[in-house]
Amino acid sequence: MRERVTMADVARAAGVSSATVSYVLSGKRPVAPETRAAVEAAIEELSFTVDVTARSLRTGRSSLVALIVPDIANPFFAQLAATLQEELRGLGLHVVVCNTRARQDEERALLAEALQQRFAGVIITPFRLNPDDFKPLVDAGMPVVVSADVSFGPIDLVTPDARVATRRALERVAAAQRRRIAMIAGPRDATGGDPRLQHLRAVALQFGMSLPHDLVVRGEHTREAGAAGFGELMNRRYRPDAVFCGNDVIAVGALDKAHELGIDIPGDVALIGHDDASFASLVRPQLTTIRYPAAEVGRAAARLLTERLDGRKVHKTVHVKAEFVARASV
Amino acid sequence: MRERVTMADVARAAGVSSATVSYVLSGKRPVAPETRAAVEAAIEELSFTVDVTARSLRTGRSSLVALIVPDIANPFFAQLAATLQEELRGLGLHVVVCNTRARQDEERALLAEALQQRFAGVIITPFRLNPDDFKPLVDAGMPVVVSADVSFGPIDLVTPDARVATRRALERVAAAQRRRIAMIAGPRDATGGDPRLQHLRAVALQFGMSLPHDLVVRGEHTREAGAAGFGELMNRRYRPDAVFCGNDVIAVGALDKAHELGIDIPGDVALIGHDDASFASLVRPQLTTIRYPAAEVGRAAARLLTERLDGRKVHKTVHVKAEFVARASV
Repeated sequence: MRERVTMADVARAAGVSSATVSYVLSGKRPVAPETRAAVEAAIEELSFTVDVTARSLRTGRSSLVALIVPDIANPFFAQLAATLQEELRGLGLHVVVCNTRARQDEERALLAEALQQRFAGVIITPFRLNPDDFKPLVDAGMPVVVSADVSFGPIDLVTPDARVATRRALERVAAAQRRRIAMIAGPRDATGGDPRLQHLRAVALQFGMSLPHDLVVRGEHTREAGAAGFGELMNRRYRPDAVFCGNDVIAVGALDKAHELGIDIPGDVALIGHDDASFASLVRPQLTTIRYPAAEVGRAAARLLTERLDGRKVHKTVHVKAEFVARASV
Repeated sequence: MRERVTMADVARAAGVSSATVSYVLSGKRPVAPETRAAVEAAIEELSFTVDVTARSLRTGRSSLVALIVPDIANPFFAQLAATLQEELRGLGLHVVVCNTRARQDEERALLAEALQQRFAGVIITPFRLNPDDFKPLVDAGMPVVVSADVSFGPIDLVTPDARVATRRALERVAAAQRRRIAMIAGPRDATGGDPRLQHLRAVALQFGMSLPHDLVVRGEHTREAGAAGFGELMNRRYRPDAVFCGNDVIAVGALDKAHELGIDIPGDVALIGHDDASFASLVRPQLTTIRYPAAEVGRAAARLLTERLDGRKVHKTVHVKAEFVARASV
């Protein structure tokens, strides 16, 4: 292997002092644009890379924990962030929230930032990532906790146990004499497949109900997609009388559309959300939903991350119980 | 896989120095048109792209812009974050949202992180900070933009112009035969004083109404504080018939309490929020509010930050017009 290029080599090539190279790298003191350009050119020519470990020792490690989520406007994640803050501040850690807007390029760019040691650790709800995307972080020993319905490889995981809650929801739907259930699910290319859909389908079978493919519509986890999906379902010849939603944001969009179409919820169609975001009790009718307790998820994720920072090497999974919340939309 | 094309390759192909390529890419120094053309041709020929990640590794500069806010659960800030992302991603910058929960120690800790060069720039809505808290950042040349009702010293500022909107709101209140106005304001120790309160009081005087001290109650910018404040006002001997709120989160808390007390909004008491957060149209009755357009604030803040990153030295203030939104709570 070639000898490692040092800062002094860069300084020599650029015709400046090592201190100047250091200023350019740290940004801690202003450097004239032409000097900066010369240094950057020399860095490029010599393929110089910063030794992150040495740097981290010098400057102090990051106190930032990144919470990477697909939708910062979803109150579930705001609550998750608040709990993480509460749990981690005693360790001198600060939580920063990164919004990927469910875009794979943003998700990957943020993992790359983590690899640069900008963060002390990462807690993430992936939307379009694969287990492979996490490998470099795991190899680098970066503490990572995934909060998702499915596993993303040998990584710490916080995941829902929704068996009882889904059964309760279907009992309620059956008691309301509804048989034709439908679902507004996430997009087909979301990673982790369709755990909520598959789970609902499996439990529905136990109740003698089916969830046929043409009563599953798909879209992003947005209010707009919820409205569009609900409109689509109402156009089906075999019109559903109970609609399950991938999350509460989708359900609010469905409510918008029902209002627009003059369809009564729950008189004509029952509506069931997922998460119990803060606005679920603000909308009218108040939303019946499957509660995934953000505070408990946050506490579990904080605990897993803390254990990693303390040196735990094996990965762990924590199951958090979901809960059926009966309000007024069924 | 093909070897990655470097800036040095481009320089060689164009017959110029790497520094010149860097100038063409950054636009930081003028380059002769024919030289620029040669460099651009070489870039084209070699399919050279700037690798932002590699660049940030090389220079040690962060690609993270911190948005520091008092309440991440307030949808106003989620919308602000989304707009900033949209505006800044073309520059290879990522927005991370930091929640201070209106705590001064958290606000200060995050500014300290910024001083450690964890961030390329900071956009902040301070809650309990003073102009002095920003001095070290300004001295260090860190790009900072404040979004607030008042100035925090010689720093870029995005600030509301709510004169017309407040007048409209009071016209509406007067037209509804309301005379006894009250306000649920922020805490006394919030920095920047009480611009929204002072502003309302000044405009109310022009309408021949007063806003006496005993009809001003205070609390944090939370739903709980809104409920408590509304309850307090309803216990006054001189009970108000129109209540203005410091923001929409407070107003939703006031709605909670009105519902609990059996007080009709707007029949018994008119209620006016501030911001037009996404849930303002979700609650019943839909909230009449003073809209502060988060997307416009975001665009203004992104523009100010970008100019700073490009080297602007003098500070600027941008006024964003607020707007009265008449819904059903007056």
